[in-house]
Amino acid sequence: MNATTKPILRALAGEAVWPPPAWMMRQAGRHLPEYKATRAEAGSFLALATTPELAAEVTLQPVRRYGMDGAILFSDILMVPWALGQKFWMEDGEGPRLEPIQDIAALSRLDVTRVRGAAQCIFDTVSITRNALDEAGSRTTMLGFAGSPFTVACYMVEGRGGSDFAFTRHLAYTDPAFFGRLIRILTDATVDYLLGQVEAGAEALMLFDSWSGLLSPSQFRRWVIEPTANIRRAVAQTAPHIPMIGFPRLAGSLFGDYASRTGMQGLAMDTHMDPRWAAQQVAPTQALQGNLDPLALIAGGTTLETEARMLLSSMRGRPYIFNLGHGIEKETPIEHVMSLLRLVRGG
Amino acid sequence: MNATTKPILRALAGEAVWPPPAWMMRQAGRHLPEYKATRAEAGSFLALATTPELAAEVTLQPVRRYGMDGAILFSDILMVPWALGQKFWMEDGEGPRLEPIQDIAALSRLDVTRVRGAAQCIFDTVSITRNALDEAGSRTTMLGFAGSPFTVACYMVEGRGGSDFAFTRHLAYTDPAFFGRLIRILTDATVDYLLGQVEAGAEALMLFDSWSGLLSPSQFRRWVIEPTANIRRAVAQTAPHIPMIGFPRLAGSLFGDYASRTGMQGLAMDTHMDPRWAAQQVAPTQALQGNLDPLALIAGGTTLETEARMLLSSMRGRPYIFNLGHGIEKETPIEHVMSLLRLVRGG
Repeated sequence: MNATTKPILRALAGEAVWPPPAWMMRQAGRHLPEYKATRAEAGSFLALATTPELAAEVTLQPVRRYGMDGAILFSDILMVPWALGQKFWMEDGEGPRLEPIQDIAALSRLDVTRVRGAAQCIFDTVSITRNALDEAGSRTTMLGFAGSPFTVACYMVEGRGGSDFAFTRHLAYTDPAFFGRLIRILTDATVDYLLGQVEAGAEALMLFDSWSGLLSPSQFRRWVIEPTANIRRAVAQTAPHIPMIGFPRLAGSLFGDYASRTGMQGLAMDTHMDPRWAAQQVAPTQALQGNLDPLALIAGGTTLETEARMLLSSMRGRPYIFNLGHGIEKETPIEHVMSLLRLVRGG
Repeated sequence: MNATTKPILRALAGEAVWPPPAWMMRQAGRHLPEYKATRAEAGSFLALATTPELAAEVTLQPVRRYGMDGAILFSDILMVPWALGQKFWMEDGEGPRLEPIQDIAALSRLDVTRVRGAAQCIFDTVSITRNALDEAGSRTTMLGFAGSPFTVACYMVEGRGGSDFAFTRHLAYTDPAFFGRLIRILTDATVDYLLGQVEAGAEALMLFDSWSGLLSPSQFRRWVIEPTANIRRAVAQTAPHIPMIGFPRLAGSLFGDYASRTGMQGLAMDTHMDPRWAAQQVAPTQALQGNLDPLALIAGGTTLETEARMLLSSMRGRPYIFNLGHGIEKETPIEHVMSLLRLVRGG
């Protein structure tokens, strides 16, 4: 009954497509020489992410080289704070930085009405990429994405990456009014940002929650599951045909709660998650995605083969999208990716 | 049928003691002014940890102040590599450093037969502490501990702390012979080290596995569950009356596997774990321990009360030891610890 023949969309509609469709998180990135060339041409990460022709080019590179079933928009989860008007810059050798938001005055300067306009360059990237796929008659699905409100809030409050975001988690306990307001702003902005991508041609959407595994169960339900369910509902109201994939990294014991309460069509598993256990936590129609260890992909050989075969056999017979459990590492040999994809496509 | 009246030992024997016994990870530490004074007297962390009178004093400080039901040996998981002969030093403002072990030559210099002798100062700390507890007629349980082979191996290979230990995890894939040899050395050394603590008076033992949540399910079974089960068996052969608590931090979906295959009498839950879910994963006689968010303890007030009550109600009626889900933070107000303990002891 699926009008579409795109394998990822069929899996997200609950079909046990086999061999499974495949793509890899961070597939457009530094493990590819063609990416490095375009990145050098752009001059900076921000220039690359905000110049639609170049961003579309790197989005398409892994599709051309590997025939990936998903083309994930080349962008960054911090594009939403940037579009909200938070000061954003790249620190040499340190990655992205934001001017920290820790009081109501700073919070009040964020402007949700700005997001659609400011993010136009991102939507243009989606349009260009989707058109290129359509013109080639590709079965590759155009995937849009955003960071989850909690994960993005961690960066917005602390102004930089970190390993535990204790300051933000403490703030969420001691000033839930402030933190709740930030989460609501981010929820609204994320809905706008995702719907802009849908209008531009995104066929499915992924929500990345990199840091939610740090929260206590009650905080996880309040700051992760609830806003994610709100985003899912708001997107579905305007775009009921667009499936979503949630990635609650390190959710562990709370993975099933997340799956049932958010109603995501797809659930991405991190490297550590037991796929057989995960399959028991989600509805039979909810697709699972993941979770080969990126380090097994670097290792290659029989290690890679053994890990991949175990994963595939645990997912056979249910809706599933092959992926890694974390972004592909820059040291990954291209031949390893090729041989992994041959194995996956062999079924 | 329990000869003992010590609440922690009763809980570890499978009894649903209520109100539950309580202690806190890193309870001897920088949140206590008396700790800071003794630390200053010692001059350095290593001097403090290796001078039995001083280490016993800081081990006893939280027992005196709070009446904790557990006295956890003041030490460090890196005492085992230190006792094995790996070069160890403290870097100002950076914490402990080890000379990295990345080849067979360096591995061959480790000497398991050295551990018992080199760690004598640690065993002396246990003796002094246990004697002090006995002389006071205390119901506080003397807890020994070690790091798990995998977690300790991460530090031994990389020489320092980190946030993902990707180098070690990659090595475990690409050179399992080397990594397996290191894990076997650590397994033997850890058994000797734990049994030395038992002979000195430790009444229960805890194994800390801080970084196992980074491994894929198959690597977790190979490098965490298997060595942990081996340690558990070897300790039980010599000291069948000594219960053990395992802390597989971020084990998530693999918590139940860890519990059933290692046969630990106690399972410690990290902050993120859902306690109701955890209770379904372990045998009814296996005690759970944990997992209040240390940040909720800093926050205090109704936040702390709500989180603590939820946790207690989820554990009521089963063997349980109250604890945090991570070490207590140095910013924690002493009054918050006091009011939390009043609440826990109110049952």
